[in-house]
Amino acid sequence: MSQFKTVRGMRDFLPKDAKKLRYVEKIARELAHLYGYEEVITPVVEHYDLLAAKSGEEIRERMYAFKDMGGRKVALRPEFTASIARLIATKMRNTPKPMKLFCTGSLYRYDEPQYGRFREFWQANYELIGSSEPEADMEILTLTNDLIGRLGLHNYWFKIGHMGILRGILNQEGIAEGQQHLIMQLLDKKKQDEALTLAKESNASQNCITVLKKILDTKGKDASQILKMAKHIVTDYDNAVAAVENLQEILELTRDSNVKFETLVEAGFARGLEYYTGMIFELYVPEIEIALGGGGRYDKLIELFGGEPTPAVGVAQGIDRLVLAMNEQKVPLKIPEESKVMIIPVDEELRTKAVELSLELRKASISTEVELMKRTVSKALSDADRRGVTHVVIVGPEELREGKVVLRDMKKRKQRVVEIKGLPKEILKDMD
Amino acid sequence: MSQFKTVRGMRDFLPKDAKKLRYVEKIARELAHLYGYEEVITPVVEHYDLLAAKSGEEIRERMYAFKDMGGRKVALRPEFTASIARLIATKMRNTPKPMKLFCTGSLYRYDEPQYGRFREFWQANYELIGSSEPEADMEILTLTNDLIGRLGLHNYWFKIGHMGILRGILNQEGIAEGQQHLIMQLLDKKKQDEALTLAKESNASQNCITVLKKILDTKGKDASQILKMAKHIVTDYDNAVAAVENLQEILELTRDSNVKFETLVEAGFARGLEYYTGMIFELYVPEIEIALGGGGRYDKLIELFGGEPTPAVGVAQGIDRLVLAMNEQKVPLKIPEESKVMIIPVDEELRTKAVELSLELRKASISTEVELMKRTVSKALSDADRRGVTHVVIVGPEELREGKVVLRDMKKRKQRVVEIKGLPKEILKDMD
Repeated sequence: MSQFKTVRGMRDFLPKDAKKLRYVEKIARELAHLYGYEEVITPVVEHYDLLAAKSGEEIRERMYAFKDMGGRKVALRPEFTASIARLIATKMRNTPKPMKLFCTGSLYRYDEPQYGRFREFWQANYELIGSSEPEADMEILTLTNDLIGRLGLHNYWFKIGHMGILRGILNQEGIAEGQQHLIMQLLDKKKQDEALTLAKESNASQNCITVLKKILDTKGKDASQILKMAKHIVTDYDNAVAAVENLQEILELTRDSNVKFETLVEAGFARGLEYYTGMIFELYVPEIEIALGGGGRYDKLIELFGGEPTPAVGVAQGIDRLVLAMNEQKVPLKIPEESKVMIIPVDEELRTKAVELSLELRKASISTEVELMKRTVSKALSDADRRGVTHVVIVGPEELREGKVVLRDMKKRKQRVVEIKGLPKEILKDMD
Repeated sequence: MSQFKTVRGMRDFLPKDAKKLRYVEKIARELAHLYGYEEVITPVVEHYDLLAAKSGEEIRERMYAFKDMGGRKVALRPEFTASIARLIATKMRNTPKPMKLFCTGSLYRYDEPQYGRFREFWQANYELIGSSEPEADMEILTLTNDLIGRLGLHNYWFKIGHMGILRGILNQEGIAEGQQHLIMQLLDKKKQDEALTLAKESNASQNCITVLKKILDTKGKDASQILKMAKHIVTDYDNAVAAVENLQEILELTRDSNVKFETLVEAGFARGLEYYTGMIFELYVPEIEIALGGGGRYDKLIELFGGEPTPAVGVAQGIDRLVLAMNEQKVPLKIPEESKVMIIPVDEELRTKAVELSLELRKASISTEVELMKRTVSKALSDADRRGVTHVVIVGPEELREGKVVLRDMKKRKQRVVEIKGLPKEILKDMD
């Protein structure tokens, strides 16, 4: 009965894992709030043409695309930025800048499943729209670093570069945009030789090939040293020089603001998405091969979708990948311990009293269940034990006549008779 | 450029509306926790056959179904219950009962858009698995009522019935299940005459038609009176009588537990989903024609998906419809007022100090933005005003030398010089 399994590449999250995913989502949403990013929600189903416009060949080929019943060519979103750019070009056209938007949800790509990569995945997405200043790029890096810190990951680094370096070189060589995209894709897939061959075939000069070769080798942890070298290498290409200087300023600002993270600067770094124009980065941990998140500057996309020319920079954090990294680094969730109550009536007549009591406890924010299986007290007690219930309330006729119930502390295995009106306090007291 | 619009039936939530949707989702999740329902997450994309099995003709015809790149016939989930039943029949097969599961997310149906009805919508879904007792049905009603109360809706009612009434009659008449589904669908669409004609054509007796006619007219606010009448009408049909008695017990338990809500009992109530077997209900407000949520008992579905025979009852609350109802009834969100800070450096040199300060304020859980547009202080101030910022921190060289900054209260339009180390306290103090 294969139809009663999940579809290949899709997955279920059982309670233990769902809790982790929602925890990271919650921390990500709190972070958005702390940085002044307002949440928007866009649909999972968008017009294919919107999503395909600038997502890059690789993603374009792997979209869940289909015709809806009205014959519209639609697809499940493979990323958020196209939808956000659409919003800004249309319904939020007149919202003053800078605009800071957060969104979160599931995304879809028909990738070959591997460790950490599924066909349905979750991202927390932050977009800072309207500022071309390096402060804005810095904020996106800072915010990403802050999220990682709040989650408690202790070993990670930012791989960082600037699309303007390669683009500056290729533009000055007069290489058409389509060819540039192909070259970038090859580089993104670490196919450097093929990328260089394609550059040659696209009539790049011999000097260009030499510069490209060198720049692709220019990478390392010491950002200021690497960028100094890069600047020297691209010295003949004015816009590439400007790109290096822009990245220098962003990283200096970050350092001087005491925002600390490990970097791996790659002067020849290219990301698959076609819309990037400036600083680009990805986040890694040693335990997982693929990036946990990534982002960068995209100053042309909103204009492409019919909006005003609008600079923008953003980041997408892979929520399920962050969970995986937390598992790998054995980082616990910061969730406070709580009482968990089960109310057991000793006979059928007392069922309604048990429900009444449960409503009172829940009003006091205590997680409370009521016995629903008409089991004996002893059977219900052993079930409660197995389920990690901290307190059992036993509703019996004798205690009830005096306005009391039996409160059993499941950890200490002790019980006492308490007044009903003081019950929430008694339970909360035990948890201190 | 139609591709740069949302697809018909899909919609964007701008910040004001997204906040409401996330608020209801948060309250729904808190409620799940308070009732001991654990969250699971299942995929949006499932095998078509799973979703089609028992969803009913109307939903089946309106699914977003397509073939994925591997040739699998898949669809976007139109509801949660099939996925949850799949989980219980497979991965959670051995989890002890009762099991309480919560899930939330987006769902998809190619319905004709109307007020409150979109092709992408959100639900909070609660399933109580393993108990056939009326306490379990009562809990689902109680939980739904509790959610509505917590949201602050003040005028609503439960339309309530029992699938066993009509099924009991039709079964005893020997009408095949497929025919029964068709009759139920007609009744769900309020096509009573057509339903009765179909029953006749399916060889229902004249007595049966008379009983059906009467039972379809048996509805009203006074549950005990309506159910007494219903019992009398179906007296020749044993299982129908048992169904009425089951509903009586559920509603009496609810009343005796002091759970209060308005009911509209309809003895001939049928819901579109084919998997229901027992109590069924829907939630309404006067301002909106369509149901805000609905649920019921489905004791056969898990078995159908290869699991053990397992009784179950659940409810799906329409999150976006609840938001609509809150708008209609002008119910405010219970979100506490908070400080919102903007930090403005008076010159470029102080940018990094502004970022450092912002990180400190965020550590103190204060929502803080930093000026990112290199604007003059006065321009940044008027922008802050427009954006509802409560406090502006102005970082100037003179104050900074003494470890101080200027703190401006935007409401009172007053500013004072404060020490940096006491800044979070000063800001929080103003909000008390």
